[in-house]
Amino acid sequence: MTTDDNRPASERVRVRRRPQRASYDRDLVRAILDEALMCRVAFVDDGQPYVLPTLHARLGDTLYFHGSQRNRMLERMLGRPICVEATVVDSLVMGRSVLENSMNYRSVVVLGTGQEIVDAAEKLEAMLVLVDRLLPGRRPELRPLTDAELRSSRVVAVPLEECSAKVRTGPPADREADRDLPVWAGELPLRIVPGVPVPAPHVPAGVEPREGVVSWGSGRSGV
Amino acid sequence: MTTDDNRPASERVRVRRRPQRASYDRDLVRAILDEALMCRVAFVDDGQPYVLPTLHARLGDTLYFHGSQRNRMLERMLGRPICVEATVVDSLVMGRSVLENSMNYRSVVVLGTGQEIVDAAEKLEAMLVLVDRLLPGRRPELRPLTDAELRSSRVVAVPLEECSAKVRTGPPADREADRDLPVWAGELPLRIVPGVPVPAPHVPAGVEPREGVVSWGSGRSGV
Repeated sequence: MTTDDNRPASERVRVRRRPQRASYDRDLVRAILDEALMCRVAFVDDGQPYVLPTLHARLGDTLYFHGSQRNRMLERMLGRPICVEATVVDSLVMGRSVLENSMNYRSVVVLGTGQEIVDAAEKLEAMLVLVDRLLPGRRPELRPLTDAELRSSRVVAVPLEECSAKVRTGPPADREADRDLPVWAGELPLRIVPGVPVPAPHVPAGVEPREGVVSWGSGRSGV
Repeated sequence: MTTDDNRPASERVRVRRRPQRASYDRDLVRAILDEALMCRVAFVDDGQPYVLPTLHARLGDTLYFHGSQRNRMLERMLGRPICVEATVVDSLVMGRSVLENSMNYRSVVVLGTGQEIVDAAEKLEAMLVLVDRLLPGRRPELRPLTDAELRSSRVVAVPLEECSAKVRTGPPADREADRDLPVWAGELPLRIVPGVPVPAPHVPAGVEPREGVVSWGSGRSGV
């Protein structure tokens, strides 16, 4: 979790609470963002903060978000301060006392400002990375985007510059006097598993889901 | 999804994008909040929005958050505009074109202001509801909270007044011309499953996890 240069890029992205769990290692930040199924974007409108769930794609040290040109969140991200957060929950942590019930998790917070991507090739690539994140390798199967679809889409980029990770691992931090209590304590790992695929109406006869659909997330840990 | 009185409590909590997915039904809002493993809280500090993941408990039409008296997020929630968001992902949605790749989800957004709970009984109850949310029925097993622990904890309440839900269900919304493409399309349901419990150090010999640990989340749908 520590690197040779494990320092926050700015004071405001420094983890304040339980700093021993903090990391500013860019590789760790990237790995958490890639594993998280989705993320949250917070923006401010007329003094009121809003936070909305959304899908994200990462290419190098840039996060991409896409949606319709009419999407309010994407519009509000442009040129304003925003915050992106993504978390993977690894386990429930059950201690012997009320305060020691928690979770093991890996989370990332990114501060920055959204910038609209106008270059068609970069827009398209960001949208395809997002498809591949839902189901690796699916990209070549899809009907190509039309020019009209590309024009009606907005892609917003946020650089991974001011960012931090926070990670909790290990057993509950019960005080020593509580350890002999006749109560089970420990960690319960959680993971996501896929169910039975539900075909959409009109899928032609004989067209089966790719193997990656049925085995989605195999080897995955965390939620 | 609609009720006799399915109207937003305020204009600013009205769902703008895809309003056909919106609901202001309080029962639905409560159910989503209870099912979501955790939530996010957004607050503004010096013009910069921040969003952090946290555990929440619901009692009636109040959301509770707890942590140390030194927790910055809890302090920043008091008397300021905040936003709480919780989402359950039900399935990946895979369409035939790039734009029709998405998720089925149930999400809630709550706008409001945090208020500190000073009444000891209400503080304690909120913290115990949180324990029960991680593992139903675990509350009686735990070593009771001490007065010092209660004093060092802060509980912040947010009323469920300005809130909205947004729900996507069903297959990808592919255009009709795409339906005959030889590409599998549909939904892949996701759910959370527990792994093998990892006992904490010093659990006395013979103390086994309660049945609820091993069967955690059974019958659960969504992530």
